[in-house]
Amino acid sequence: MQVSVIGASGYVGGDLLRLLLQHPRVNVQQATSESNAGKFIYSVHPNLRKLTSLKFCSIQEIKPCDLLFTALPHGSFMHKFEPLSALAPRFIDLSADFRLRHPQDYITWYGHEHPHPAALNKFVYGIVELHRAEIKQAAYVTGAGCLATTAILGLMPLFKSNVVRDGEVFIEVKVGSSAAGNESNLSTHHPERSGAVRSFQPTGHRHTAEIIQELGFHGTPRVHFSATAVELVRGALATSHCFLREKLEEKDLWNIYREAYANEPFVRMVKERRGVYRYPEPKILAGSNYCDVGFEKDPHSGRIVVMSALDNLMKGAAGNGVQALNVMAGWDETLGLQFPGLHPI
Amino acid sequence: MQVSVIGASGYVGGDLLRLLLQHPRVNVQQATSESNAGKFIYSVHPNLRKLTSLKFCSIQEIKPCDLLFTALPHGSFMHKFEPLSALAPRFIDLSADFRLRHPQDYITWYGHEHPHPAALNKFVYGIVELHRAEIKQAAYVTGAGCLATTAILGLMPLFKSNVVRDGEVFIEVKVGSSAAGNESNLSTHHPERSGAVRSFQPTGHRHTAEIIQELGFHGTPRVHFSATAVELVRGALATSHCFLREKLEEKDLWNIYREAYANEPFVRMVKERRGVYRYPEPKILAGSNYCDVGFEKDPHSGRIVVMSALDNLMKGAAGNGVQALNVMAGWDETLGLQFPGLHPI
Amino acid sequence: MQVSVIGASGYVGGDLLRLLLQHPRVNVQQATSESNAGKFIYSVHPNLRKLTSLKFCSIQEIKPCDLLFTALPHGSFMHKFEPLSALAPRFIDLSADFRLRHPQDYITWYGHEHPHPAALNKFVYGIVELHRAEIKQAAYVTGAGCLATTAILGLMPLFKSNVVRDGEVFIEVKVGSSAAGNESNLSTHHPERSGAVRSFQPTGHRHTAEIIQELGFHGTPRVHFSATAVELVRGALATSHCFLREKLEEKDLWNIYREAYANEPFVRMVKERRGVYRYPEPKILAGSNYCDVGFEKDPHSGRIVVMSALDNLMKGAAGNGVQALNVMAGWDETLGLQFPGLHPI
Amino acid sequence: MQVSVIGASGYVGGDLLRLLLQHPRVNVQQATSESNAGKFIYSVHPNLRKLTSLKFCSIQEIKPCDLLFTALPHGSFMHKFEPLSALAPRFIDLSADFRLRHPQDYITWYGHEHPHPAALNKFVYGIVELHRAEIKQAAYVTGAGCLATTAILGLMPLFKSNVVRDGEVFIEVKVGSSAAGNESNLSTHHPERSGAVRSFQPTGHRHTAEIIQELGFHGTPRVHFSATAVELVRGALATSHCFLREKLEEKDLWNIYREAYANEPFVRMVKERRGVYRYPEPKILAGSNYCDVGFEKDPHSGRIVVMSALDNLMKGAAGNGVQALNVMAGWDETLGLQFPGLHPI
Repeated sequence: MQVSVIGASGYVGGDLLRLLLQHPRVNVQQATSESNAGKFIYSVHPNLRKLTSLKFCSIQEIKPCDLLFTALPHGSFMHKFEPLSALAPRFIDLSADFRLRHPQDYITWYGHEHPHPAALNKFVYGIVELHRAEIKQAAYVTGAGCLATTAILGLMPLFKSNVVRDGEVFIEVKVGSSAAGNESNLSTHHPERSGAVRSFQPTGHRHTAEIIQELGFHGTPRVHFSATAVELVRGALATSHCFLREKLEEKDLWNIYREAYANEPFVRMVKERRGVYRYPEPKILAGSNYCDVGFEKDPHSGRIVVMSALDNLMKGAAGNGVQALNVMAGWDETLGLQFPGLHPI
Repeated sequence: MQVSVIGASGYVGGDLLRLLLQHPRVNVQQATSESNAGKFIYSVHPNLRKLTSLKFCSIQEIKPCDLLFTALPHGSFMHKFEPLSALAPRFIDLSADFRLRHPQDYITWYGHEHPHPAALNKFVYGIVELHRAEIKQAAYVTGAGCLATTAILGLMPLFKSNVVRDGEVFIEVKVGSSAAGNESNLSTHHPERSGAVRSFQPTGHRHTAEIIQELGFHGTPRVHFSATAVELVRGALATSHCFLREKLEEKDLWNIYREAYANEPFVRMVKERRGVYRYPEPKILAGSNYCDVGFEKDPHSGRIVVMSALDNLMKGAAGNGVQALNVMAGWDETLGLQFPGLHPI
Repeated sequence: MQVSVIGASGYVGGDLLRLLLQHPRVNVQQATSESNAGKFIYSVHPNLRKLTSLKFCSIQEIKPCDLLFTALPHGSFMHKFEPLSALAPRFIDLSADFRLRHPQDYITWYGHEHPHPAALNKFVYGIVELHRAEIKQAAYVTGAGCLATTAILGLMPLFKSNVVRDGEVFIEVKVGSSAAGNESNLSTHHPERSGAVRSFQPTGHRHTAEIIQELGFHGTPRVHFSATAVELVRGALATSHCFLREKLEEKDLWNIYREAYANEPFVRMVKERRGVYRYPEPKILAGSNYCDVGFEKDPHSGRIVVMSALDNLMKGAAGNGVQALNVMAGWDETLGLQFPGLHPI
Repeated sequence: MQVSVIGASGYVGGDLLRLLLQHPRVNVQQATSESNAGKFIYSVHPNLRKLTSLKFCSIQEIKPCDLLFTALPHGSFMHKFEPLSALAPRFIDLSADFRLRHPQDYITWYGHEHPHPAALNKFVYGIVELHRAEIKQAAYVTGAGCLATTAILGLMPLFKSNVVRDGEVFIEVKVGSSAAGNESNLSTHHPERSGAVRSFQPTGHRHTAEIIQELGFHGTPRVHFSATAVELVRGALATSHCFLREKLEEKDLWNIYREAYANEPFVRMVKERRGVYRYPEPKILAGSNYCDVGFEKDPHSGRIVVMSALDNLMKGAAGNGVQALNVMAGWDETLGLQFPGLHPI
């Protein structure tokens, strides 16, 4: 399959190239970057040195292909949607531009009207664990927010089972610096960002809209979301707190999660009585496509604490996109995604 | 004033020595460490090289003094309380051994009976901002848990003003590795601990008991507490979520906090519209005795997110102890505690 | 091919298992750990969860196989050599126990006599780039020290070309914490090790012996070696300084390196005029089997500075071992070793 | 004494303000920043919140004072020298603009002619340990390069004693990110800079000129200097390698160093047989004005390895400047500089 990547110089685009270049069924036809057109890909993504002699081209030079990945900054693809859609029968867009189903949500959460509201419903929200059947049939798939994916995969089994009291959940996400992209500024300048535990979005984070949308297929979620940047490059951990509508024991919750995820190749339940890694830990997921999920019941109050972790550039972006590609193409869902992560790291 | 430190080889003991050695009104008479008796203090606390030629002694050699600091591991001082109390008219204990007022709380949260239940009420809970008047009169002062202090100082003004709906609060603390002490094990081994975002206590953290106790002077708090270890040596950030009993605007909340903290030398309100450090950030507090507090109101739901940060070894332990000492002695509360923290760091 | 791993609970053993479990031509038959016998492998190496349901066994239970990897602590395998050699026709030992050819070197650098001096010559020093032909024929291969490998691969082309003045070189290695293994102690305790720039072996590092041995095939090297631990888990960078016997320009040096490494699948020359990654950088090599090499000529003095970087657990240990396995077995040398490393990380 | 700071928004300027605001004999009159004029100082240096209500002003508004500190980017002060020199009888310039005595050195190392070559000799090179007597008399003092200071303080006793063979020394400096200043770019962007071990200046580093100049008062040094950026914000470690002209034992070297530094308040010899911190370690120096120095003799070759460490913003810049101020003013040299550094950190 001939695949091209629009917006390939960013961190998501780079990880996508890494995966596609080693994917056994894919040929990377072109990769665009306006500011790096003509340069070797490895000049921007140094880990790809010796792996490819491909150079970036401009989006002007892009040719028809079988599937087009777009990994442009948010707000960019929505304006290029029409011309680009002539180039390929299938699209996977990793930006936020077509993730939300309701045009009003773009006004509420992104502060602007969507230029193609009618096209929103052409896209399938691309978390395979949620929409596998639709993705299999889809021409247009959108990626999902990395923090939204983390939270949703942790909470979905509880919402599907309708056990969350009032649908209310408090989600606290801790995330690494790569989630903010490759544009440097004072807040990402190493002496300022190093060792940070920074409340960059205590309220109003845009990924909240996706969480509400997806959990909302199973009730009326009330989502309270905060995000804190921590010292880490890749990785996100969501700690979600909720109560149950009825009395359930840990083994009942185990059953709920097992039913949801026993057959999922990229979700692992992590809940051990002892050991260093008894709950999900993002650092050992760097480079892997796993989302690890665990939970604990508060013996004092009955509160459920759900922990879910992933690599924001992999299961939170590029890896998830390749997983969707595999599903769309009818291939083994794990093709090109078998790297298990490193320990120690 | 002649001051000695029992248990001076740990991280809290070391920071205490650093502060006391440079305190203008204090002479450090003795510092004990059973495993390091006879060694120079700087052999354990290398930052104190050239500052003192004092050596550790054994607790057996300890002599009467004006005030005794104890910084022993939790569960140790409670069994030494009686013999040690003969040595000094005044005590500041930085362990958890006398922090809780109700003997039952030791059973519930620490899993054992307290050997001196009658002595619990002799101690004042040593957060100066909460109990200044009592500390001024006290012979026995206990320190406070570092994470408890972080959360309490963030939330106390709201509880004192009785504005928290149902007294219910979800507290998520992120904390550095020094809070776990200087005993190495696999979970603190650098290759395992580096870059961690680790849910080490999703429920059942012992500091919860202190938070309930202290907020409980102003209603009936319902506290849901979780703790996550992050890549950081010194520092803690508490992110606390609650709703309000009535409609209050940000300026009303500002008034509540200003009233509480305007005259506090070691609490700073941090809430800016822009900039990298617009909310409390623990890293710039390393070595300082400040607790920084900020808050944000969720425009979507009315949720209040309170952020509070401190250095767990300073305002969370040794610095807070010296602040209590200053109050007990009738000195300027900031003596020996003026270091403002570093930027960048 | 049936392969077993002796000493599989350490960091090298864990990385070896990760590679072998995904190797297309290998079946992992057994993995030993005395302290973890009976436990799932993923309980020690959490990244392997869902990848294998294998459990550790005791070395007592080990069965005959086609090839045996040993990754025991240094000084252990040399005493088990005879019984173990009955179990498999081929061995790859990743400890230091058979790396040195001269029994005297064990006395000089390791402080003890070698129990099997006659066996030393049965082993081939396992850096494929140095001894490919011999490894192809070998029954017994020994791994190489991670820091030795870093330095040797950077310097070998200059020594082979006999251009180093007096054979004299100053090597300064910076290395991450995983190189010291998984045994925790105070020096690796996170609050002490975090942010360290620690001169742990200014002189007398044992890997010096290997560097002298291998460079010594091409003259009489005078090696001055120092090692500094830096904040990093995986990775080593060697900065080596030497002068030239004759006047050579940068392009001459390029030719020397190109001739040595143009056809090497796991050595990349990295020497760019601009960009962030214009010289070898270990962090982007985590998990990869590459050794990146670059150099710069001092315009003031003619000094040559050679920089070489690798992942100490991969090209410095487990990855290098699998590369040797591929050569011994006559397979494509890159089998199971294609992971290119991550960016950013 | 009324002191103003020109260029106070950078990292050196910020640390200078921190020190001067708490200095018992100094009043900070004005602090300039063109891009932040009118803003509170704590909006840029968040650690100074509550310490001062001073605002930045423009350099246009600067008024006469007793002493002027300049901490402008290199190349800026040299063009403002004449107008500024009218404002204060005494200057301490922390840039590189007047550090070198020979105009030719600016051409060789900085690539441009110096606009005020005649003024170069008016400045004293401001490392107090080297030029205390001259600084006491000086009107104009220049700071010293942070890496130059690290290396010079480590090596000066050996050069003064004339024991270095051929005056030849190989210096490898490891340094944190704050040394590159507060301007963000891709190389300092957190995802790129985090965990780096980056050869940013293998040859040609400008501080080499200062090292040659200062060691050159005691012979003809041949200096081979390389600099590597490591994961750290504050701190530098120089590892210097040389041989001796004659046979000296460790105790002879001890005598040389003791003679040089026994009475220096800010240089500590660190050379222990055991322990984590047996050699200089920059991390425990953050915020302190110490330079720690140690050495080891290679038993195999007689090579001497000298290790020296400091906080690049303190003894490497602002702290050193305040030390010079204290000497110029005839005050106790340690005024305002007593913070000993933190452990752990």
